[in-house]
Amino acid sequence: MTNPHKVKKTTISELRQDLVSGTWVVIATGRAKRPEAFIKEKREILREKKGACPFCRLDETKQEPDTLILNRGKKLPLGKTPKQWSLRVIPNKYPAFVPTKTLNKRQEGPFNIMDGVGFHEVIVTHDHDRGIPQFSKKEADEVCFAYQDRYLSLMNKRHIDYISIFHNHGREAGASLAHPHSQLIALPMIDPDIHRSLEGSWNYFRANRRCVHCTMIEWERDSDERVIYENTEFVVICPFVSRTAFEIRVYPKDHRPYFERMHERIRIELADALQVALRKLYKGLDDPSYNFFLHTAPCNGQSYDHYHWHIEIFPKTAIWAGFELSTGIEISTIEPEEAAKHLRKY
Amino acid sequence: MTNPHKVKKTTISELRQDLVSGTWVVIATGRAKRPEAFIKEKREILREKKGACPFCRLDETKQEPDTLILNRGKKLPLGKTPKQWSLRVIPNKYPAFVPTKTLNKRQEGPFNIMDGVGFHEVIVTHDHDRGIPQFSKKEADEVCFAYQDRYLSLMNKRHIDYISIFHNHGREAGASLAHPHSQLIALPMIDPDIHRSLEGSWNYFRANRRCVHCTMIEWERDSDERVIYENTEFVVICPFVSRTAFEIRVYPKDHRPYFERMHERIRIELADALQVALRKLYKGLDDPSYNFFLHTAPCNGQSYDHYHWHIEIFPKTAIWAGFELSTGIEISTIEPEEAAKHLRKY
Repeated sequence: MTNPHKVKKTTISELRQDLVSGTWVVIATGRAKRPEAFIKEKREILREKKGACPFCRLDETKQEPDTLILNRGKKLPLGKTPKQWSLRVIPNKYPAFVPTKTLNKRQEGPFNIMDGVGFHEVIVTHDHDRGIPQFSKKEADEVCFAYQDRYLSLMNKRHIDYISIFHNHGREAGASLAHPHSQLIALPMIDPDIHRSLEGSWNYFRANRRCVHCTMIEWERDSDERVIYENTEFVVICPFVSRTAFEIRVYPKDHRPYFERMHERIRIELADALQVALRKLYKGLDDPSYNFFLHTAPCNGQSYDHYHWHIEIFPKTAIWAGFELSTGIEISTIEPEEAAKHLRKY
Repeated sequence: MTNPHKVKKTTISELRQDLVSGTWVVIATGRAKRPEAFIKEKREILREKKGACPFCRLDETKQEPDTLILNRGKKLPLGKTPKQWSLRVIPNKYPAFVPTKTLNKRQEGPFNIMDGVGFHEVIVTHDHDRGIPQFSKKEADEVCFAYQDRYLSLMNKRHIDYISIFHNHGREAGASLAHPHSQLIALPMIDPDIHRSLEGSWNYFRANRRCVHCTMIEWERDSDERVIYENTEFVVICPFVSRTAFEIRVYPKDHRPYFERMHERIRIELADALQVALRKLYKGLDDPSYNFFLHTAPCNGQSYDHYHWHIEIFPKTAIWAGFELSTGIEISTIEPEEAAKHLRKY
């Protein structure tokens, strides 16, 4: 007789829903480690040697086929090894989410479970030692082009409700490889952070008949104390309510709910604003580790016209410790006004 | 003329409320750093030498008066330097929250602000090299006694709505000093994590007429796959929905909403369960960095009889990177069933 409480082993990740918060957690059984691996890895700095970098020799390492290849702003045909390339998108070798036909929703005791269905891709730029802050304007724009191109390709796939695009730079920010790369994860649900962001924006909209982000942007541009850069389409600020020291946000100045609906002209301005922001961090804080990510309206087929997409940049200036973990309250050890004053110089 | 947008400098922390999420963020102006400090600190490992540890020479370093002194389970009189002590509680030298008479609620543009009013204390045990996993049963119980004693002393203070007790162990978990210590922060609001936990528990209670934690505990004890320890009053599990690898929770077996209402007999069992859990981590993962914290009903004068207090322990087995920051979804790289199997051995 099988034990009904015995959890079935599967190679795909398992999403388990917390009974209290409703949040889904990914139990990555497919990429699961042995308990001993955690001991071994402890405090071990796994900086790969340049010659051993898997992104420097993509065609030698066995990998899934590219989903996008760019060379100097031009799309190259997929399926064959490019002679020259500047950017490639490949499925993640250790995906947290993989495409399958069904979500396989089920129950285990009082808990809801489903399969980790989705897509997990890596956006790799060519050079090992040069990232967005070092790029030419055209190279930076290629990265934004790739984000949008892959977003558009995946947004209407079965089961996909939200697409998260993010970039980890530096060991302290959780980048497992030093070679510059971004990631895209297409999810079968709206994640808790976006859910709260949508809900909060909607509540403000209902009460004030106005986009909460537009309100903030207007006030920030008017007060000018925390604006560190502007171009024709975007404004870059250290937000008044900064979650961490030197947090930066890049907002479209006009009300725009959907990241993927972005004309080429605007995308070029986005690349400029993002690059300036990252360059200010690079120079102003001497190449800190950081994460940045996109927050945009979901692609679950519903309308989110009240939302306002943007990019959030978090330099790794502190470690989330017991207080933050326990309360969700974050402590910023510099006023955003001071942070902005410093970053404006660069 | 003063610029109305100019933020006034104050020495007390400023709490700023996010317009979208409603979450309060602490802008620690009192302990604020200069921008240059962030560059200097970057990647610098500040391991203090044993002789220079401020907790090893509490009476030499100028400090605020103790709020509790214990020696071998006995309270000592406050206000004079104890000859011998095993545990002392002192106000944090760099408090994120300080006691003042008024919250000083105000508006800045569209934002709500208030002062960082509250208490921030540090619970220090005597020995530099011995913490809870190494303690005798009586020493471990002293720590739990101190948590409860300070909780009871602060819970009815003006403006205090919630008390967070937490412990950071190891550099990776954000401990700025190696000397074992816990912290207590008394807050002028219910923090977002507890708010969600209370709300989620209440929704479950309304729908099922049953405590959600009692439901989980019953199912976990019944299935037995993730239980790693039990004594007469507490059960220690690797929860089915683990947010990180090797997450551990310590639950009272009986339904108990309020941490502070804990008889001595039960407190001794808590000390035992907490110590066993931390010892299993210490042995099973070779002294990993970790955070643990208390989640209990607020002390804002309302009833939360549906809640069930507990302790959550998070070994630092991964770094929160762009995906987690962006979505709030966490990825655990080992199944809790495997983690429990490993920890049971120790």
